[in-house]
Amino acid sequence: MQLGEKSWPEAHELADKVVVLPLGSFEQHGHHLPLLTDTLICTEIARRAEAALGDAVLFLPVLWVGASDHHRAFPGTISVSNELYVALLCDMIESLIGSGFRKIFLLNAHGGNITPGRMAIYRAQMRHKDLTDLWIALGTWWTLAADAVAAVPELQQLVVSHACEQETSMILCLRPELVRRELATGANIPFESAFYCPDFSSPSRVDVPRAFDQLSQTGAFGHPELATQEKGEALFQAVAEQVVSFLREFATWPSLTPQ
Amino acid sequence: MQLGEKSWPEAHELADKVVVLPLGSFEQHGHHLPLLTDTLICTEIARRAEAALGDAVLFLPVLWVGASDHHRAFPGTISVSNELYVALLCDMIESLIGSGFRKIFLLNAHGGNITPGRMAIYRAQMRHKDLTDLWIALGTWWTLAADAVAAVPELQQLVVSHACEQETSMILCLRPELVRRELATGANIPFESAFYCPDFSSPSRVDVPRAFDQLSQTGAFGHPELATQEKGEALFQAVAEQVVSFLREFATWPSLTPQ
Amino acid sequence: MQLGEKSWPEAHELADKVVVLPLGSFEQHGHHLPLLTDTLICTEIARRAEAALGDAVLFLPVLWVGASDHHRAFPGTISVSNELYVALLCDMIESLIGSGFRKIFLLNAHGGNITPGRMAIYRAQMRHKDLTDLWIALGTWWTLAADAVAAVPELQQLVVSHACEQETSMILCLRPELVRRELATGANIPFESAFYCPDFSSPSRVDVPRAFDQLSQTGAFGHPELATQEKGEALFQAVAEQVVSFLREFATWPSLTPQ
Amino acid sequence: MQLGEKSWPEAHELADKVVVLPLGSFEQHGHHLPLLTDTLICTEIARRAEAALGDAVLFLPVLWVGASDHHRAFPGTISVSNELYVALLCDMIESLIGSGFRKIFLLNAHGGNITPGRMAIYRAQMRHKDLTDLWIALGTWWTLAADAVAAVPELQQLVVSHACEQETSMILCLRPELVRRELATGANIPFESAFYCPDFSSPSRVDVPRAFDQLSQTGAFGHPELATQEKGEALFQAVAEQVVSFLREFATWPSLTPQ
Amino acid sequence: MQLGEKSWPEAHELADKVVVLPLGSFEQHGHHLPLLTDTLICTEIARRAEAALGDAVLFLPVLWVGASDHHRAFPGTISVSNELYVALLCDMIESLIGSGFRKIFLLNAHGGNITPGRMAIYRAQMRHKDLTDLWIALGTWWTLAADAVAAVPELQQLVVSHACEQETSMILCLRPELVRRELATGANIPFESAFYCPDFSSPSRVDVPRAFDQLSQTGAFGHPELATQEKGEALFQAVAEQVVSFLREFATWPSLTPQ
Amino acid sequence: MQLGEKSWPEAHELADKVVVLPLGSFEQHGHHLPLLTDTLICTEIARRAEAALGDAVLFLPVLWVGASDHHRAFPGTISVSNELYVALLCDMIESLIGSGFRKIFLLNAHGGNITPGRMAIYRAQMRHKDLTDLWIALGTWWTLAADAVAAVPELQQLVVSHACEQETSMILCLRPELVRRELATGANIPFESAFYCPDFSSPSRVDVPRAFDQLSQTGAFGHPELATQEKGEALFQAVAEQVVSFLREFATWPSLTPQ
Repeated sequence: MQLGEKSWPEAHELADKVVVLPLGSFEQHGHHLPLLTDTLICTEIARRAEAALGDAVLFLPVLWVGASDHHRAFPGTISVSNELYVALLCDMIESLIGSGFRKIFLLNAHGGNITPGRMAIYRAQMRHKDLTDLWIALGTWWTLAADAVAAVPELQQLVVSHACEQETSMILCLRPELVRRELATGANIPFESAFYCPDFSSPSRVDVPRAFDQLSQTGAFGHPELATQEKGEALFQAVAEQVVSFLREFATWPSLTPQ
Repeated sequence: MQLGEKSWPEAHELADKVVVLPLGSFEQHGHHLPLLTDTLICTEIARRAEAALGDAVLFLPVLWVGASDHHRAFPGTISVSNELYVALLCDMIESLIGSGFRKIFLLNAHGGNITPGRMAIYRAQMRHKDLTDLWIALGTWWTLAADAVAAVPELQQLVVSHACEQETSMILCLRPELVRRELATGANIPFESAFYCPDFSSPSRVDVPRAFDQLSQTGAFGHPELATQEKGEALFQAVAEQVVSFLREFATWPSLTPQ
Repeated sequence: MQLGEKSWPEAHELADKVVVLPLGSFEQHGHHLPLLTDTLICTEIARRAEAALGDAVLFLPVLWVGASDHHRAFPGTISVSNELYVALLCDMIESLIGSGFRKIFLLNAHGGNITPGRMAIYRAQMRHKDLTDLWIALGTWWTLAADAVAAVPELQQLVVSHACEQETSMILCLRPELVRRELATGANIPFESAFYCPDFSSPSRVDVPRAFDQLSQTGAFGHPELATQEKGEALFQAVAEQVVSFLREFATWPSLTPQ
Repeated sequence: MQLGEKSWPEAHELADKVVVLPLGSFEQHGHHLPLLTDTLICTEIARRAEAALGDAVLFLPVLWVGASDHHRAFPGTISVSNELYVALLCDMIESLIGSGFRKIFLLNAHGGNITPGRMAIYRAQMRHKDLTDLWIALGTWWTLAADAVAAVPELQQLVVSHACEQETSMILCLRPELVRRELATGANIPFESAFYCPDFSSPSRVDVPRAFDQLSQTGAFGHPELATQEKGEALFQAVAEQVVSFLREFATWPSLTPQ
Repeated sequence: MQLGEKSWPEAHELADKVVVLPLGSFEQHGHHLPLLTDTLICTEIARRAEAALGDAVLFLPVLWVGASDHHRAFPGTISVSNELYVALLCDMIESLIGSGFRKIFLLNAHGGNITPGRMAIYRAQMRHKDLTDLWIALGTWWTLAADAVAAVPELQQLVVSHACEQETSMILCLRPELVRRELATGANIPFESAFYCPDFSSPSRVDVPRAFDQLSQTGAFGHPELATQEKGEALFQAVAEQVVSFLREFATWPSLTPQ
Repeated sequence: MQLGEKSWPEAHELADKVVVLPLGSFEQHGHHLPLLTDTLICTEIARRAEAALGDAVLFLPVLWVGASDHHRAFPGTISVSNELYVALLCDMIESLIGSGFRKIFLLNAHGGNITPGRMAIYRAQMRHKDLTDLWIALGTWWTLAADAVAAVPELQQLVVSHACEQETSMILCLRPELVRRELATGANIPFESAFYCPDFSSPSRVDVPRAFDQLSQTGAFGHPELATQEKGEALFQAVAEQVVSFLREFATWPSLTPQ
């Protein structure tokens, strides 16, 4: 159910429902994927979840601009700074709280949004810590559905990186005409370290930010050449199912009482 | 042509084109119109202009959140503060300039966006005043196309206000199932003044901001009950034509040289 | 009546009166006018209005620094950024509201102050939207008195621009020794457009900010060479009369009640 | 010489001169003095200095709004926050530096301006530390001329506080009709401390800010009842002489070279 | 080696070394641990690492104030907001970069510092992305040394939470006189969820911020009653070894070149 | 007594005590003193005061980073901007007030902290002006103990400047191995002025900020070559005694009532 299609008196009646704000980006995704890749993926996950949930949950449109300053060396990237992204999410969350909503979920599809997204929900929650029934959660699809993603058959890469096997498969599934498969090449960086993996192919034990153009000439990581439409469909199914499962559970969360 | 469907190397090749950022809102529109009214209208104007212009001009998705703090007393309104809206537009314009674009048009469909929109393009232009070929313009559809709007047959109101005859007609044209015609009532405020008109039905000679709930109980102004699908279609045609005409002219603007 | 000449217990007694904050600037006005042109004009309009209104209305001194960043390429311009000007007006308005004033008028004489001035009064009004008797208005003299200005005999230009026939006439009337008539030359830019007029000689349908040095080598617009002392006197009379008329009406505005 | 009476080409020619920005306030000064007391005093000091210096030094108009938040409990006080005052001075100084000025003096007449004034000139100087010929100085009249003030005959108070013997004498000298002598009463707080003196009658060894309404019911300190027009004239003479002496010396300061 | 014990010419000579900024906090740690718990732990880890590394690495003093707003309901907590903590780290990192340092490590001992710490190093790295040899890393001891921590014998809890078995053991090892063992009780929240674990005892798949007083009445989590001095010593050994290992590797990281 | 060694319930019980926040810096101190000079001095003064006061007063750890932007041209200086330092102190003071403390003393050992320190305590005090028992004081050791400092036998310099006779003596007393006496040379600037003394050797009548590298090549002022361990010990004794005396008095200050 789309909150934006309701009038304000209707919105008033719906304030006890979970409301979902999907978060995308508008940034380079290598030589082979469109700038709106994350937004298209997020839109599709939200669409499937909305279809499954019927009137139980309210959805907002996808916020298509994200925090992508590390991609700004690549033309076409439209980004807001981390600080501004925090403020933007806070104002939107504040509007929702002011309208009476108490269960707010940010469904995220872009890695760069995670840190500022955490800052934003922390700030909003602290500002309203007297509202004991207020829950604000942020979930990024590849973390929320990590096990389900890793279980998709025939995937070579178990971890989502950027313009990679998974994202390419998903756009192939949604909008194949936008994928330039012949240009699909990702960087695989030969960096020997026990603590840090620059291309996200394994987890790091320390945080190390870098501008993306220092990591990849094409702007992609991993093995996009392994992408298929079938993997994309399987990913969407797996992720949407987990998101639906989370939202059903989220709707039942009670107020917390300290012990 | 949608910039977001291009890859970054393609975006790089297209930097000499005009790029259009459509600006909507997510705010109350009376008892009878959906929260996304301005965004739906803006999307449709942009869609028609894009169809007419083919590959000549690049379009971004509509920014669906706007500066609507004066509507926040009505549930469902999602707003960013004016200050934040300025910063948001600036970051997006900065990204476009950094990508090489030099002709940027903000196509606006919400009155509350006008003042912060002007702040934003002023700031961006001043920051880059060494780029003599940089043009940033902001046009609100009812001003850009004022004469054409006033010439639409059978319109009773010559000036667009809020959730009024014009906006209601346009949503009737686009998404009739979202209009609750039986609830369409606008405030018409009996305020006697030679200088100020609170419901926008005639121009004011002084600026006077007010929270919308102090002006209208329903949240609407004017005569939405006079709306028809035909007026909506006529409005879209008239406005889209003017926007296309402007964008064609805009593409030809030269660098200014002082005299 | 000057508020600044009262003690604080007297100010406390006067809080039911309209208070006027005149807004000037300190910026280049071509080769022929002084930097304080807008401030001198604003001071004189306020002086005449004060004389006509007696004890009915309180006046503050003119704020002589304005938002003039688009003039900063010309030496001598002293400007605050738009953002700072917003904050400055907000703090001043906040002080007045805190002192009990509920009718605040910003009498403006500089075009660059309009957009930040609107931002400021919007912010202040929204912050205090529970004060139903609070009115904050911003009027720029050439808009507030547009018809009266256009009716001044022998004026060639009907619209005020910058260091133009009108402003030059007004300084000739006030301080003729400060006008270098032999250097009075304005740019008249041959820009063909159906939507935008860079030198303000006709209204634009889109907003397009530019640094002033990209528009005029002298820093002036229009036809300052047509200025006369008589036109200046006629302008002051016409404008002061309209301002007085507005302030008398403003003093009577009731609380708004939504309908 | 008033910079504001010059055109921009003239200002360009004068950039090697010292420029003076006088700083006042608009705040309560007890039951007996007008809100503009500091501004009136500062204006008169500047006027006398300007008269003595002829074309040697450029003066700006007095900035009549100051940092007076500690007086905001008294109606009529118009104040900007310390933070905003810093930013305001910085923007004005920035404009002057951008116009080519390299000797900038802030002539201050309000105690509350001192700390933010220091913040401002520090920030401006650090931002331009590559300009080795740039000097920015801030002088408050009772410090700059401390010895001369203390030497004025018949003064009972040797230290200037607020709405006190000195300030009252100065307004008596300038605008006697604005002084309500019968209401002139200052608080003299019996606070026993070896480290802190709340009413400024002796120097403190620690800094302790307090809202003024916690220190004085009338809003005044010291002994305003001892004020006379003659003391006022003597104070203006003594202070103006010191300011002139400083400005003459300031004009000769060379670039510093480290040793 | 302590950078703070060097003079500036010595610092200049040492700029090719790794520099470590340890990050603590000053916040409630249950009924049984001191407010400086995180700072004491961080100091000890840094001390051991410094001892092992000799002159190879430079250490700064521990920054004892952290981002602890979620603990502010408990008296004694001294916290800076997340936004301010970001700015604080940025200014410190900026100073180091300005001094010539190119390998900067933030050694963190407080969970609340992680998100703003990431914001800070991201901002600093993006601002200097032209410095290809600049590496800024943030490591939190229980993540950097996760496997080694989990391998400590007899630990019941494998994951560090707050004022828990691990932290209590470590303070027992360092400063036993500061531990009130008889008051050591942690909340263990019976929250059934497949996605979120409020007391950190297992990883969450979504981010959900909460004020700490909504989660625990004592302010502690987990099983502090299981703490022993031996476990504390074992933890310090394990963690310091990993930190040393990381710093030795970090010193060798080359410039990244994109592929 | 160290607040940081207490648990939060203990802190709650101690809220009626004075709490002291010592303020240091991390900045260049000439060729001969360590970067942490001010912090070492502040730590020692606080240590001696704490020893003398027993449980009567609570101490925080020294904040070792200060506002030292004027020293940033010298490598090794770690500084936060004045604006950030204000905000940092405000957040810390806010935490203390929120914990119930009403007597807060900032014990300062760095000149650059004075102006932002005043800004901070002013902001905090104004924000809480309804708390009539709240006292926030800032004392810099050489001002708070000026007479006692000047009375130390055999001191050649009566005024403390930077890396000078006094500071060098104090580090000689504390950590002689960190002093490179053979490199101890201070600039003594031959600037003839009746109003301004760049090297602090006599008081100035105007404020004039300068970057330190424009004033001294070594980074030191005055006569560090005259330093002795004995003078250092005498300084510590004199200053600590005055600080103790102040803190004992401060603990007794009552609420102020206006008269």
